[in-house]
Amino acid sequence: MSSCTSCNSCDPAAAELCTAAAEADIPTVWDRYAAQQPQCGFGSLGVCCRICWKGPCRIDPFGKGPQRGICGADRDTIVARNLSRMMAAGAAGHSEHGRHIALAMQRVGHNELPAYQIRDEAKLTAVAKRLGVPTEGRAIGPIAYDVATLTLEDYRNQDHHHACNWITSSLPKKRIDKLRALDVLPHNIDATVAQIMARTSVGCDADPTNVVLGGIKGALADFTGMCLATELSDAMFGTPQPVVTTANLGVIRKDSVNIAVNGHNPLLSEVICDVARTMQDKAKAAGAKDGINIVGICCSGNEVMLRHGVPLATNYLSQELAILTGALDAMVVDVQCIMPSLGEVAECFHTRLVTTMDENKMPGATHVSFHEEHAEETARTIVEMAIDAFTLRDPKRIRISSAVSKAVVGFSAEAVIGALAKIDPDDPLKPLVDNIVNGNIRGIALFAGCNNTQSMQDGGFQTIAKKLAKNNVLLLATGCGAGAFAKLGLMTPEATNAYAGDTLKAVLTAVGEAAGLGGPLPMVLHMGSCVDNSRAVAVATAIADRLGVDLHELPLVASAPEAMSEKAVAIGTWSVCLGLPTHIGTVPQVTGSAVVTDLLTRGAGDLFGGYFIVEPNPDAAADTLLGAIEERRRALGL
Amino acid sequence: MSSCTSCNSCDPAAAELCTAAAEADIPTVWDRYAAQQPQCGFGSLGVCCRICWKGPCRIDPFGKGPQRGICGADRDTIVARNLSRMMAAGAAGHSEHGRHIALAMQRVGHNELPAYQIRDEAKLTAVAKRLGVPTEGRAIGPIAYDVATLTLEDYRNQDHHHACNWITSSLPKKRIDKLRALDVLPHNIDATVAQIMARTSVGCDADPTNVVLGGIKGALADFTGMCLATELSDAMFGTPQPVVTTANLGVIRKDSVNIAVNGHNPLLSEVICDVARTMQDKAKAAGAKDGINIVGICCSGNEVMLRHGVPLATNYLSQELAILTGALDAMVVDVQCIMPSLGEVAECFHTRLVTTMDENKMPGATHVSFHEEHAEETARTIVEMAIDAFTLRDPKRIRISSAVSKAVVGFSAEAVIGALAKIDPDDPLKPLVDNIVNGNIRGIALFAGCNNTQSMQDGGFQTIAKKLAKNNVLLLATGCGAGAFAKLGLMTPEATNAYAGDTLKAVLTAVGEAAGLGGPLPMVLHMGSCVDNSRAVAVATAIADRLGVDLHELPLVASAPEAMSEKAVAIGTWSVCLGLPTHIGTVPQVTGSAVVTDLLTRGAGDLFGGYFIVEPNPDAAADTLLGAIEERRRALGL
Repeated sequence: MSSCTSCNSCDPAAAELCTAAAEADIPTVWDRYAAQQPQCGFGSLGVCCRICWKGPCRIDPFGKGPQRGICGADRDTIVARNLSRMMAAGAAGHSEHGRHIALAMQRVGHNELPAYQIRDEAKLTAVAKRLGVPTEGRAIGPIAYDVATLTLEDYRNQDHHHACNWITSSLPKKRIDKLRALDVLPHNIDATVAQIMARTSVGCDADPTNVVLGGIKGALADFTGMCLATELSDAMFGTPQPVVTTANLGVIRKDSVNIAVNGHNPLLSEVICDVARTMQDKAKAAGAKDGINIVGICCSGNEVMLRHGVPLATNYLSQELAILTGALDAMVVDVQCIMPSLGEVAECFHTRLVTTMDENKMPGATHVSFHEEHAEETARTIVEMAIDAFTLRDPKRIRISSAVSKAVVGFSAEAVIGALAKIDPDDPLKPLVDNIVNGNIRGIALFAGCNNTQSMQDGGFQTIAKKLAKNNVLLLATGCGAGAFAKLGLMTPEATNAYAGDTLKAVLTAVGEAAGLGGPLPMVLHMGSCVDNSRAVAVATAIADRLGVDLHELPLVASAPEAMSEKAVAIGTWSVCLGLPTHIGTVPQVTGSAVVTDLLTRGAGDLFGGYFIVEPNPDAAADTLLGAIEERRRALGL
Repeated sequence: MSSCTSCNSCDPAAAELCTAAAEADIPTVWDRYAAQQPQCGFGSLGVCCRICWKGPCRIDPFGKGPQRGICGADRDTIVARNLSRMMAAGAAGHSEHGRHIALAMQRVGHNELPAYQIRDEAKLTAVAKRLGVPTEGRAIGPIAYDVATLTLEDYRNQDHHHACNWITSSLPKKRIDKLRALDVLPHNIDATVAQIMARTSVGCDADPTNVVLGGIKGALADFTGMCLATELSDAMFGTPQPVVTTANLGVIRKDSVNIAVNGHNPLLSEVICDVARTMQDKAKAAGAKDGINIVGICCSGNEVMLRHGVPLATNYLSQELAILTGALDAMVVDVQCIMPSLGEVAECFHTRLVTTMDENKMPGATHVSFHEEHAEETARTIVEMAIDAFTLRDPKRIRISSAVSKAVVGFSAEAVIGALAKIDPDDPLKPLVDNIVNGNIRGIALFAGCNNTQSMQDGGFQTIAKKLAKNNVLLLATGCGAGAFAKLGLMTPEATNAYAGDTLKAVLTAVGEAAGLGGPLPMVLHMGSCVDNSRAVAVATAIADRLGVDLHELPLVASAPEAMSEKAVAIGTWSVCLGLPTHIGTVPQVTGSAVVTDLLTRGAGDLFGGYFIVEPNPDAAADTLLGAIEERRRALGL
């Protein structure tokens, strides 16, 4: 494979380190993207079926070749099945993350895991009340156990008429009623995933609309898993509050033992942070005069960034580049969005690549099996490996990046409402609602989702956000979108001053100053990892409940300019099902079916109030999102 | 699409009715197969990845183009992920079937479903004892409820260290210990499916062996779901006992209202049979002088064939041809292996195509929503639709097939052991074990799995079975394999006399006569639908337990000459994991990875004792299976 000649990113660190990759003849994701061109048109349209061994089958999109697979499935059935399976996989990923947290919390409740505590008792108590778990006069341990056990019921319940506790307690009643009427409320996360797999197998559900509605139940199971993962994580690790930190590859330091945590699950990365604090002297003794420097990548990075101010090295697409700095001593990975190429890149450097989850191994990595009961020993072993690796660095190959930005992050729903409460302690939502009603804030946009080689890395996020901010839209972000904004310096008061429209700027300044930040809130509020998209929904639900309306009536939109993973497919879909006009900049692999495409972009609007906006051009996407916001405002008479 | 010019089947009915299809210019599955040629080589090798929207990606099998997908996944990772997801989907299908039965049994236990009873109390009691449910002095209802509830625990348990009740109670202890040591025992069927989906998503498990071992846990979850589905179905609908009936499209009668039940789940088809008996007069009044004739297709057909002697019309690949007889008045479908083309074919005739399960709809069908609490009304509605359709037949288009064979079927494990008990009531297994030991029976082969257009329909089953029988191998069959044998007249005493080797013939004759069948047992014993493969394992486990050995030590083999569906992928894999040399005649879509291919065909032998034999040529496959049997005999010193 030829080495990188040009990457497609608007992140200055990417250009810088892709040059290093090219010089060292180490292929990166952009090289592999180039090598895959042209990509299969059948797959891109969604009309390739590999669901049984009579196939593979392909539908001729031009209508001259076969119009049905061997079993008789047509383009609509094939596209619908492929799409629904992506929703199932997305739900499985987020919900497995949630289950992992819930099982750990059960054991924390029984004092079985010394490395973990309930760090935010107020949050746990609030969650307990919401779920109907008694709290009065009880110790925190038994409450934690009961909350976790009730949470696990959402993976156990076999009564198909009883919807998951976590979804019914997380959305406005009107929305739940709508979803129930459409029979898309999940009753059990695992069962919903399994049922999608079953109904999309050969010779099963062949009605494309029915198949997609089945997938939608999976997408709402994804939302369910996400809510519980976020809320229980907050109880165990603390609910994020505003913190000032830095982002981009320049956070990797020459004189530190640099350890990147990459993946999604805070159970490991939290303990790595805890243990590293106790091992600074050991690192210094090994020659790292600035001690240990934990940095984050992808959503493990977002988790520890928001809770501890750990600097964020980068987001998904440039994770290989962290190793190319020549100064990353260990990359510790858990689950999801970890490039299988990392082993090959790490082998060209001194960097130790460490896998930790038994169900997520990688060629070229050292596997250190992580189990919560031995979390501290495991973390210590990993930190020691990094310290050892530090001594093996090749100084000639170190390329410390100059790219680093300030980032003010940590805007959980509680933090947002807490900041607003400084203006109106009795009715914290009032300042926000009033400013939406009077038009100082035209609407709210949530940026979420991945990086994707199909687009310029981070570019869509930047373009759309600046245009929306200029038009006085309040911006929230999670996941790799949040990573993009943090790297590009858009999560700062300075960005607010530079880019926000006058009325938005005035509101952000008033709230920021009232909250003691000494200036405006950042232009984009970092709400967390991709599993934390539920935080934005919590804010939206609070607004809807206060106004007595349903979510689809509010001037809310979502955007995932670089949607890529199956998790993003699930997230985008539930966003639509909660009523939001939802932009994706990636053309989804469904355009081979007019039925499915129409259902997602138009029919969904009739059913759910939300719909997909597919627009690869960021500038045009911003205009469409602004139009959608204004349409909602008009409907509300604003 | 051009009409059928030649089908690839050794079933005489297929040739006959494909001619009719060609004359009417109605495409069949073989036309669609021809139209799909050439099939995509990337998909066929398993090296096409559509797991995220950076892709689709493809690995160049010749090593000149890209060797990694955009994320960095190589051929081994991609193949392993695709394969494991097929296992997950297979497990989901069988287990969803099982859950449906278990939920119904809970309600039967509480007298909430008037259309259903516990028809085999002895079986329920035996199952209860095996699971540890108290039976002494209890009414059958509460026992049924408790058995169903404990069964559902296999979908609910969150303790990853506690294996599913139904797998640990269905296999020899030595086998369970081996599977536990390899960490592949499922703890929860749904969770296992979801966990496979999660670990195979972008950026997760990239170690191909680890990914396949994860998939294997899913395959064993498939086995778990299959065991519970079969045993609870027997308790509710009766355990099959030998019955003489007929098979092939000639079972569709000119002067009857012909209703085909097609799919897999007996909950509907059982009630259709019950209700039809009460509506004969109505059919006669409509002009059908022979009343109502229920016939079976695919595994719904096998279920009612074994329990009620309902004639089997055909197996998977020729299900469209049943409509082409012009005399099929209704085809009632439930779930799995139902061709989406049926709507198009039915529209060319008077036939009413009726879908019944809300999660399995089809274009061109009338949907009659089936729920157990209204089972009889629903069944009556459907039978009435068929009677109405009968009056709309076009007599000119009726082509009653001449193909019909006698079939002696109904060999549950209990029926087999019951027949043996006629020889030795105190030790029923002794005659079987003695004859294996003395070599009169060289070994036992289970034929399972699907039809596949990649092969001549039913041809591999026939060729291999005749050669094995000639070499004195006892033959069992399920699913579409059993359908093939039934249609071809190989489930008859006459076939035993014509094709079995002398010593096998002597044993089958002795047992058949002792059991009062007045002649030998059939050459192939029909054990049921594809979900009933657990019956063969029950017999094998009984033999292994009696000899104190593990399953891989016995001279047992399995063969799926036309493996096609994801369920077959799961079944074949668990067969290997239980220790059986397992033949598939379809080249699996894994050959793009030497690592995965080697693991399945060789490495699995070291881990599990069983391994895959891939051999499209039936004659060569028979030789290899005979060799595997003799190798096992030698190892046992026989």
